[in-house]
Amino acid sequence: MKFSIKKMSNEFDGEIQAIIDGKTKPIGALGQLEDTAKTIARVQYSSSKHEKQPLKINKPSLFIFAGDHGVAAQGVSIAPSEVTSQMVANFATGGAAINVFCQQLGWQLSVVDAGTLAPSDSYVGVLEQRLGNITAPINLSPAMSLSQVDLGFKKATALIEKTAGTGCDLVAFGEMGIGNTTSASAIMATIMDIPASECVGRGTGVSDEIVKRKQLVIEEALALHQGDLVNAKSILACLGGFEIVQITAAMLAAAEQNMLVIVDGFICTAAAMLAVQINENAKGYMIFAHCSGEQGHQKMLDYLNVKPLLNLGLRLGEGTGAALALPIIQASAAFYNDMASFAQAEVTDVTSPTID
Amino acid sequence: MKFSIKKMSNEFDGEIQAIIDGKTKPIGALGQLEDTAKTIARVQYSSSKHEKQPLKINKPSLFIFAGDHGVAAQGVSIAPSEVTSQMVANFATGGAAINVFCQQLGWQLSVVDAGTLAPSDSYVGVLEQRLGNITAPINLSPAMSLSQVDLGFKKATALIEKTAGTGCDLVAFGEMGIGNTTSASAIMATIMDIPASECVGRGTGVSDEIVKRKQLVIEEALALHQGDLVNAKSILACLGGFEIVQITAAMLAAAEQNMLVIVDGFICTAAAMLAVQINENAKGYMIFAHCSGEQGHQKMLDYLNVKPLLNLGLRLGEGTGAALALPIIQASAAFYNDMASFAQAEVTDVTSPTID
Repeated sequence: MKFSIKKMSNEFDGEIQAIIDGKTKPIGALGQLEDTAKTIARVQYSSSKHEKQPLKINKPSLFIFAGDHGVAAQGVSIAPSEVTSQMVANFATGGAAINVFCQQLGWQLSVVDAGTLAPSDSYVGVLEQRLGNITAPINLSPAMSLSQVDLGFKKATALIEKTAGTGCDLVAFGEMGIGNTTSASAIMATIMDIPASECVGRGTGVSDEIVKRKQLVIEEALALHQGDLVNAKSILACLGGFEIVQITAAMLAAAEQNMLVIVDGFICTAAAMLAVQINENAKGYMIFAHCSGEQGHQKMLDYLNVKPLLNLGLRLGEGTGAALALPIIQASAAFYNDMASFAQAEVTDVTSPTID
Repeated sequence: MKFSIKKMSNEFDGEIQAIIDGKTKPIGALGQLEDTAKTIARVQYSSSKHEKQPLKINKPSLFIFAGDHGVAAQGVSIAPSEVTSQMVANFATGGAAINVFCQQLGWQLSVVDAGTLAPSDSYVGVLEQRLGNITAPINLSPAMSLSQVDLGFKKATALIEKTAGTGCDLVAFGEMGIGNTTSASAIMATIMDIPASECVGRGTGVSDEIVKRKQLVIEEALALHQGDLVNAKSILACLGGFEIVQITAAMLAAAEQNMLVIVDGFICTAAAMLAVQINENAKGYMIFAHCSGEQGHQKMLDYLNVKPLLNLGLRLGEGTGAALALPIIQASAAFYNDMASFAQAEVTDVTSPTID
């Protein structure tokens, strides 16, 4: 499956910068909001669907992909796999953090069952995109087959194409899956080629003992699959999760559709690294929402050479960090669209090189 | 002028923490949003006006105080003092960054002329609370008299009391005043008892040469007023600005009215330090919105032992950082009010000490 993603062009950078610098504020005084406006403008100016101005954030849509991990039974988590399905039910009835944030901030929220222990078909509104009931434990066998990975790519791509058809131009992804920080840490160690010990953290709150166990399990997994980790899809098959597979594909599909992609925390950043490995052009469409409390996340962000918008010590997943970044992203578009220029406001432009 | 501010009590802390820990998320997983919810709950549970639940953020109101600084003519700024009034006009007609952010995020915005070179009476909607046209240069004389400080305290207090009467329970302050980072740096050096060199930064973008000049001017001011800097009001008279005086008083008055006080950047944090010096109980009502790009700001926040919500490299003032923090504060109240508990959602509470 190929993704045809337009490489971000620098063609309009001069024009974009001139608009930003002409606003009634000192040069650079809006910090990361200026960088974010540039990203939005680059993506939207490169798309034939958009006029050059104003920047648009229509129908922001957040998808939580849920999947269960066989590795959860290997002593790497405080919670049993049953909790994944219980939380899917909680999403379906509106009681989780991500429901509250999406409601407050104007996200259209969709919950996707990518493969959980208890099928979610009894919950109204949960999208069924199951690749299985639970992955195999990654320290004992591949998590799934390559054909399951391909099926996940197809399902996620179809979902995003449908979403693009509604006029949505910004998507975010969240995840739920007991054991998925173990899977994401193993992916991180593989892509960044660093020891498991540097990739393992406390997830949502495990003890020192469990952290050690997590590290050992990842080391076993990396040793077991050593010869097979040849590309992003084989990494996903050996070490991934059903939700991570679909998030990776959804990011690529969204970039292909010229949508902005808001990247959440540790697990979603692992998916983003895989997406960029599959097609490096995808990175230009990504806005990194936050740095999570999970210790490896900052290392991933450094590896990708990106600076996230928020750093609130969140370590919940569900897309909560991505959700909370939306007002900052909207503010970035809003200042670009609506602030007066020095000329319009008749304010002395002390930043202009012509008057210093 | 005394402010009667209730000391934040720990009385309800156990109850507040139990509500937060009962939500369907691992302990502590919402990071700084949990701290913020605690602050809101403490303030509102201590007030006889509020029921215990839900937390409320009604009519969030942001006031920009504008004032001119005689020190601006001492070579400390790239912009002439005229720009303060030009920006007041820009605020009045809706073209500045803070207008755009307030509009987007639901703030009620008011612009207060605390004393600018050109009186703002020709602009519709600008509140006239002038203490003069411009302060005296702080390196040559006191910025203003103590009676001007007292007048500023009276005017700002009346404004906040009126605002409290509308049902507003959260206020933020922003500022505009060419030269006011010099004034704020001098206040910082005095309160923290550190050299001017550690307090001086680039403001909204001055050169190395101007930074040196700023430092020298502050050293002159500190030497000149050495014997007179005996309390917060005398510090304000010697080194302050008309807008800084009124922001300091407004913060105290808001705390007295049991309102939450959102603290913006470098200049507003200098005012917050003065407010806390006048009445240390005020600190319990403050939420620190962001760390600005101005180099001394992190030091002030460390001195106050507080962690701001955002760190976006903003260095614009106007209350822009405070404005952008509102959705995070609202999300903090929303998760506290609206998330399901483990019991409600029938999710296994793996964090409960009873099941480990």
